[in-house]
Amino acid sequence: MSERYNICLDVGGTKVLGAIFNENREIVYRLKKRSKSKGGEAANVEEVIAGVVEEMLDGFGISLEQVNAIASCAPGVVDQETGVVLFTPNLPWRNYDLRAAMEKRFGVPFYAGNDVNLGVLGEYHFGAGRGYRNIVGLFVGTGVGGGLILNGSLYTGHQFKGGELGHMILDPGGPLCNCGQSGCLEAYASKQGMSAYVRQQAARGRESLLTEHVQEGVFRSKHLKKALAADDAVAMEAVDRACHYLAVAAGSLINIFSPDLVLFGGGIIESMGDRFLGKILAELDAYCMPAIRSSVEVKNAALGDDSVLYGDLALIEGL
Amino acid sequence: MSERYNICLDVGGTKVLGAIFNENREIVYRLKKRSKSKGGEAANVEEVIAGVVEEMLDGFGISLEQVNAIASCAPGVVDQETGVVLFTPNLPWRNYDLRAAMEKRFGVPFYAGNDVNLGVLGEYHFGAGRGYRNIVGLFVGTGVGGGLILNGSLYTGHQFKGGELGHMILDPGGPLCNCGQSGCLEAYASKQGMSAYVRQQAARGRESLLTEHVQEGVFRSKHLKKALAADDAVAMEAVDRACHYLAVAAGSLINIFSPDLVLFGGGIIESMGDRFLGKILAELDAYCMPAIRSSVEVKNAALGDDSVLYGDLALIEGL
Repeated sequence: MSERYNICLDVGGTKVLGAIFNENREIVYRLKKRSKSKGGEAANVEEVIAGVVEEMLDGFGISLEQVNAIASCAPGVVDQETGVVLFTPNLPWRNYDLRAAMEKRFGVPFYAGNDVNLGVLGEYHFGAGRGYRNIVGLFVGTGVGGGLILNGSLYTGHQFKGGELGHMILDPGGPLCNCGQSGCLEAYASKQGMSAYVRQQAARGRESLLTEHVQEGVFRSKHLKKALAADDAVAMEAVDRACHYLAVAAGSLINIFSPDLVLFGGGIIESMGDRFLGKILAELDAYCMPAIRSSVEVKNAALGDDSVLYGDLALIEGL
Repeated sequence: MSERYNICLDVGGTKVLGAIFNENREIVYRLKKRSKSKGGEAANVEEVIAGVVEEMLDGFGISLEQVNAIASCAPGVVDQETGVVLFTPNLPWRNYDLRAAMEKRFGVPFYAGNDVNLGVLGEYHFGAGRGYRNIVGLFVGTGVGGGLILNGSLYTGHQFKGGELGHMILDPGGPLCNCGQSGCLEAYASKQGMSAYVRQQAARGRESLLTEHVQEGVFRSKHLKKALAADDAVAMEAVDRACHYLAVAAGSLINIFSPDLVLFGGGIIESMGDRFLGKILAELDAYCMPAIRSSVEVKNAALGDDSVLYGDLALIEGL
């Protein structure tokens, strides 16, 4: 009997990552594609996902008969049990039955979950979270996402809507967040929040290497890295402010959960995690109780861009 | 064979409540005592607890042979599995083996847990929390305590230190809290926080009916109630401020947990819960995400002073 494989996908607003895992949980094939789909309509994203799956089958040279299961994240609220995407803030998906669509198309079991939830789940089973029981995961990228492993299992809350750690309010009089609240962690610590800070300073006449990159949206991690390397004052302030609020949020979350691990991940951390972690750790003790802090480890994710792919695998294997 | 009973205790810094439950989970006898114990040393509080147990046995006219088990809370970090009180912020208990002391004394199984954890557990099994699966409990009294029911079980975190919801930081530049942090929920919303506000206003020359009651510590709920009835401006401000921050905290907790219930309890809520709940609900929607808020109920505890006693009972019964 020929070997069987699992196909795992990480679907974001702008890109799709794909990996084929063999039975030893090794990645034997990879693909990365931009998910340019007019307006992000469900059918179009479905086409992109399907295209990636087919391209991977071709590229690696296996047939669907050799595929055990396919899994993917979606950037939003996903019912892990039914595979229905309930809501995505940045895509027009509402109650979209991704599982039904994919199983109809490929005739293979399909699983789906929230992106950051799966990222934390991947780190828990295969990365920096191995051996811990209660993990608070903060993933810093375009937004700030959260994932919770509690008592050894992914916590999803009522209707799979739990874990919105990026929308903890750290100052009710703070800057407006995309979600409509004010002073959310995401409004300070995400690429969106940091970009807004750069725009605000530019409006005050303060120049920065990042200014040109935030005119129409958010800077990319590589631009931030470059600005920091050039000792760009506004960029350094934006990072200090982000890390300050990440420390405040992590402190509160430590008091709330008494976790054994606080895990930082996501694109920004992947790109300059040590710089962020150092600043966060320098402030963290002020914002949580010493008796609880003493039993918490704080570290960066280990699987980088692959954490969601490994989370998909954990979902398929029912871990 | 004669009927058997459970003895349940609520031990606070200043008082001990006791109840005898019959096999139908009905309270058949009650006792309330001040826990005046010089300095609160472990041995003295132990004497108070033991005294209450003995007085209840006498008063109700049963012998220890008829007692199935005894349970008590302690105001601090308690290892529910071993019955050891690890730490109490307002009493000098450190790694105090309450179970061993009590079982040696009475020869009956003894259980212990954190006070607010047991209060929420009691409400979950016997009070306002029945039928819910994920509950965030905020108990407002001298401090602000928290308790979490997640996926149908009490969540205690690593080393039983989880659930310190009163020490979420709502404004890192806010007033100093007893815990050493700044801007904790407790620093605004507890009797301590509200009393500090009254003292601060008195120092600015603003009189209040509460001023005389906060000279050496905190006002009592009945004093606050009286001041509010007299439309005392400073008292009303203190309450508005407390409710504002309770709404901010509850909003963040809704985003974090997507619970199906947020439950308010504790002495202040017991005394004037409708007034507080009304103000909290009027502000809450601004501080959480509509898609999550829509599936959360928010209400006050139902068991009043008895919630911890029922939590003891749940602990004994292994619920």
